[in-house]
Formats: sequence, structure tokens, C-alpha cells
Amino acid sequence: MAESLENPRTGPKAVTDSYARAGVDVDAGNEAVTRYRQLLGAWRHRDQLEVIGGFAGLFRLPGDGNRALVASNDGVGTKVVIAAELGRYSTVGADLVNHCVNDILVSSATPLFFLDYLAVGKLDPEVAAAIVGGCAEACRLHDCALLGGETAEMPGVYRPEHFDLAGTIVGIVELEVLATLGRAEPGDAILGLPAVGLHTNGYSLARLLIPAEEWPRPFAGATFADALLAEHPSYYRAVRAIQAVAQVKAMAHITGGGLLENVSRTLPENVKAIFEQQRWSVPPILEELVRRGNLGAHERYRTLNMGIGYTLVVPATDVPAALAAAPGAKVVGWIEARGADEPRVVIHPVRNAG
Amino acid sequence: MAESLENPRTGPKAVTDSYARAGVDVDAGNEAVTRYRQLLGAWRHRDQLEVIGGFAGLFRLPGDGNRALVASNDGVGTKVVIAAELGRYSTVGADLVNHCVNDILVSSATPLFFLDYLAVGKLDPEVAAAIVGGCAEACRLHDCALLGGETAEMPGVYRPEHFDLAGTIVGIVELEVLATLGRAEPGDAILGLPAVGLHTNGYSLARLLIPAEEWPRPFAGATFADALLAEHPSYYRAVRAIQAVAQVKAMAHITGGGLLENVSRTLPENVKAIFEQQRWSVPPILEELVRRGNLGAHERYRTLNMGIGYTLVVPATDVPAALAAAPGAKVVGWIEARGADEPRVVIHPVRNAG
Repeated sequence: MAESLENPRTGPKAVTDSYARAGVDVDAGNEAVTRYRQLLGAWRHRDQLEVIGGFAGLFRLPGDGNRALVASNDGVGTKVVIAAELGRYSTVGADLVNHCVNDILVSSATPLFFLDYLAVGKLDPEVAAAIVGGCAEACRLHDCALLGGETAEMPGVYRPEHFDLAGTIVGIVELEVLATLGRAEPGDAILGLPAVGLHTNGYSLARLLIPAEEWPRPFAGATFADALLAEHPSYYRAVRAIQAVAQVKAMAHITGGGLLENVSRTLPENVKAIFEQQRWSVPPILEELVRRGNLGAHERYRTLNMGIGYTLVVPATDVPAALAAAPGAKVVGWIEARGADEPRVVIHPVRNAG
Repeated sequence: MAESLENPRTGPKAVTDSYARAGVDVDAGNEAVTRYRQLLGAWRHRDQLEVIGGFAGLFRLPGDGNRALVASNDGVGTKVVIAAELGRYSTVGADLVNHCVNDILVSSATPLFFLDYLAVGKLDPEVAAAIVGGCAEACRLHDCALLGGETAEMPGVYRPEHFDLAGTIVGIVELEVLATLGRAEPGDAILGLPAVGLHTNGYSLARLLIPAEEWPRPFAGATFADALLAEHPSYYRAVRAIQAVAQVKAMAHITGGGLLENVSRTLPENVKAIFEQQRWSVPPILEELVRRGNLGAHERYRTLNMGIGYTLVVPATDVPAALAAAPGAKVVGWIEARGADEPRVVIHPVRNAG
């Protein structure tokens, strides 16, 4: 955990067999993170601030004693392969922007601007405009400037029909607000905001378990394609609504690493998070991946979001106001004291009825 | 030019046959830029500032009447293919950081922090650490934080041995300093800072004209590989040294589009830049590309930097002090009044001796 507290750098995150099956080498990812840590340990800028949970980097705004800039960059991952092969380009931009917005929201940052990087094997202006247009619209919905972008045509690196999309967001936060985070205490409640599907994580595994020929087939009232490409939601409005009426002590964006890794790295050493799976539902596409991949309890909660996209820790007394402020929010668990050798996150499975 | 004045978004930049020969579709690039412009014309954030030359985006710092944030993102382009195939990973990080530093330096911005995006087909921790280590060292040399990064392993998008590297830099500038730029006048001198090779542009063409089997062969006292991978220099210290002793009225970073496109978009409508090629030398690797590709005068100055990596416009009276402050700087041309139909940039070729 020290790694994420020190350093917002993220590598391939989950530590499960399911990733290895999908051709993603998690040991190599961990080894890379260890090496990055050495690199960054060797020199750190004096204005870099300690980071809670590693979702974003924080930088003290020069000449301003009260504020920090908060930045994060990310890619859409191999969700782009599904989008490219299905020719559906309009949603990956929002996937990326919303992912980035949520990452800096964990530090309570307000987005200022976003820049995209689109790399293609062969440039199709219509496709590029659809992708960047998705970014622009998601930015507009957050009153965030689309400040720049780079489109690179790189024959020989990408197949003609393939592309990659990454982006960087920069936001701003008051140091006073930042200081209120990372303070979960025993007795606090954990609120969960619902996930709609894989969001931007687990796609190498999903492509292995649900091969391309199945994508057009009916699934859960639509098609596998629809379920796989469901847009990564922004939790910005729900979180701000909750913050307006409740004391928010810690937050986590549930991306690669699932509840197990993402929640644990936002909690103090002396507490643990207890989740009760029966308190929320799991999107059908995630259930399908669990079933097809025969993913064990540990594996599924480390690889997939399992239906919770974002968590907030609030005092129990603030729960009614928070739930009223954000439709869709549910109490999904609570905070307890933690012994030295206990896990930081415990998930109780659904109990059998009767 | 309106496009670059409005919008820092960059697409494939040159408008030459040489790009088409290399598999890069410049018409598609221009069409994409037109569509991006429509997208961005439809909504623009109130805190985005007008941009000079389109090298970076500018955003008014909220709650601060005196400063703007300056951001740019870029990739290394297909130089990564040469680096990957030669197994030389230590310099692409500096290529990227220095490119980004120079892009915001055109707005006289001081770097604050940088974030990298590294995408690989198969993650090799040693390779990843070499690449990111190059970014970290180049950041340190600019007192710029390496604030975050994302490493994505994407089997199926990248070949196992291939990778892509992109990054975003954020800097800061006083609005008062910014207001002094974009004011070139007839009679001003143009200073050039020397290029060492292709920098991060023209690699799809270079790979076409100099095939991989030649890379290990001797060239210009080293090898083609050395010449092709020569590190994109940072002009930060030279520019700051010149700014300390001279009034700098305009700057340009000579990347894709060469002198013709990059200088023209930083000048007011009523002036033109005159360059005299005999005043500076062209790196041998660029001469070689011109020769092999039989690139005409227009084509070479629009595709390659032709030996000038960065330009500064200063009053003629400040030239002696500026040249003394920055070893390597040369007077490479001057500013003249421009008639309505005249080109914005004119390059006089080398005259034959005698």
C-alpha cells in the first residue's frame, strides 16, 4: 500500500489469475511499479504533495498557500479494441473523461481542463471526430475545458483499424478540503454509487471470455456489445451532492483492482472496510464474466468492480441526508477497527435465502 | 492559420507528398483538424485563452488575475518504432519531455509537472523502467515534477515488442509576460537554436527512406541508428538566457510542419519571416533524407526542421547580447513587412559559392 500512498503511478493493477489468462502479466506489472518507485524515490519535486490512494498526483500551486493542482492520466484500455471492431466510436471519449474526472474527484478536485491523445493506425477523420467529440461533450458536461489534444497517425505501430486513446485531466482543490480526507473511523458508513458494467477495466479478460462473434448476440435485454461498451459513468454530480449535506471522510474510485485494492489504499492503517454484497446488485455482464471465468470470490473483487463504481465514507449520522441527496447511492458497508494482521477490506458474500 | 490561433489541437501536420509516401494521410489529417475545429467552435470554456501558434493550450488560473496554466500533450511518434526495434529505450523519455517543455516554452511557461502514458504490447519491467526513467531524468533537469503516469499492457493493440509513449506537461506563466509575445515587427532579427536531427518528427518518412537493415551501418561518424535516435533537445535554458538579456517578441518550436508552418503561425498578419539557409548548417541525417527522398525546397522545409529547432524574434539591437547569452544561437533571418498576398515565411536557399 505504501506504493500508492507515495505515488500516483499506476501499472496493471490486479493480482489475479484471470489477468494472466488474458495475456496480461501482473508480475511484470508489479515489478514495473517497484522500479518506478525506485526511480521516483530517487528524486521528488518539493511541491509534490502526499497522495491519498494514488488516484491522482497533487502539486502545490506555486505562489498560492491555499490550493493544489490535481492531475491524472489514463487510457481506456482494451475497451478500444471492442469499440474499434464494432465501429462504435462515440462513447470511448466519455469513458476516458469520466474515468479521469472520477480519479481526481477522490481528492475532491474540481476539473479545470483535459487533453486527449488519440493514436491511430490509419486516420479516418470521421472516426477521429466521433472519438474526440465524445471527449468534448463529456468535458462540456463537467464545465471542463478541452484544452488540447494530439492525434497521431502511426502506421506500423497500430493496425489500420485500431486506435488507442489516453488523456490527462487537471483540476484544483483547496488544501483545507484535502485535509478532511483519509480520515475514516470505526462506525462510519460506506456509501456505494452503482456501476453500470466493466467501466474501463477488465477488458482483456472480457475479450477472452466473450469472444467477438458473440458481441452482436442478445444479452440482458440488449446485446453483449451494448453491455461491454456501457459508458463509464461520472460520479461528479452525485459526489458533490453528498458533500453538500454530509461530512465525506474518504472516497475511492473502483477501477482495476476492484473494491479490495481501491478501497484499501484510501483508509488509515487502523481501520478496515466491511462490505455486504447483499446490499447491492451486480450488473449482469459482470455476473456473466464471473460465471464464464469461474472467478472465485477474491478474484472477482480484485478484477472487477462487481457493481460499485465509487465509494464514500461518511459518519453514520449523515447517511439519511446523503442517501436523499444522491439517488442510486446505497449503504454498502461500514468501517471497523482493524488489528495489525487483519485485511483492510472484507467482503461478505450474499447469504442464501431461507 | 486561424485554426492554430484558435486551437492548440494538432493533427498530422505536414502537407507534403513525402508524408503520403510514408503512409501518413495528410488530407485525412487536415480533414480531422477541420472537424475538431467545428467541435471546439461549438463550445469553448470561458477560461480558455487565445493561443499563439497553437503549441499549447492556455487556461486562466481561477481566482488569480495574473497567471495562466499552459498545457501541452504530445507523443514521440514513430521514433518509438526505431527505438523498439533497436532495443534502445533510454532516450525516448527525454525526447518526449523535452518536446513538451519546448511546446509550452513558446508561451514562455515554466514547467510545473509532467505525466506520462506508456502503452505496451507485452510489459517488460526493465524496458518500462528505462523509458520512464528517461522521462524522470528529463523532468528533474527542468525542476519539473513527474507527477503521475499510466502504464497499460494492451495485448492485441500493440505487437509484443512495440510500445507507444505520450505525455502531458503543465506549466505556468504570468499574463504580463504572455502579452509581450506575438508582436514581431519589421526589422526584428530571427535567432535560431540548432537542431540535432529529426527530433520527434518525420520518422514515418525516415523509416521509408532508411530501412531497418541500414540502421547499424556507419553514418556521419557514428551509425544511422545514432543519428536517427539523437535526443530531442530542450531549449529551456538557452531561451531563458536570451530572455534575460533581450526582448523576445515571438518564439516557435520547429516540429512537424518545419519552419514554414511553425514560424508562420506565431507571426502577426502584417509581417513575414525571411530565412537565409546559408546562415546555418543542416544535420547530416536531414541532408541524407533530402537526398534519398529527392525532397524539393518546399517539401523539405515543411516536413523537416532542416537544422533549426527553435526560433526567437528579437529587436536587432538586442542581437549581440542574445548571441552572447546562448552559445549555439545564430541569426538565421529577419522580419519584413508583408503584403496581403505574400507568404508568411520565405526561405532563401544556399547560394552557390563563387
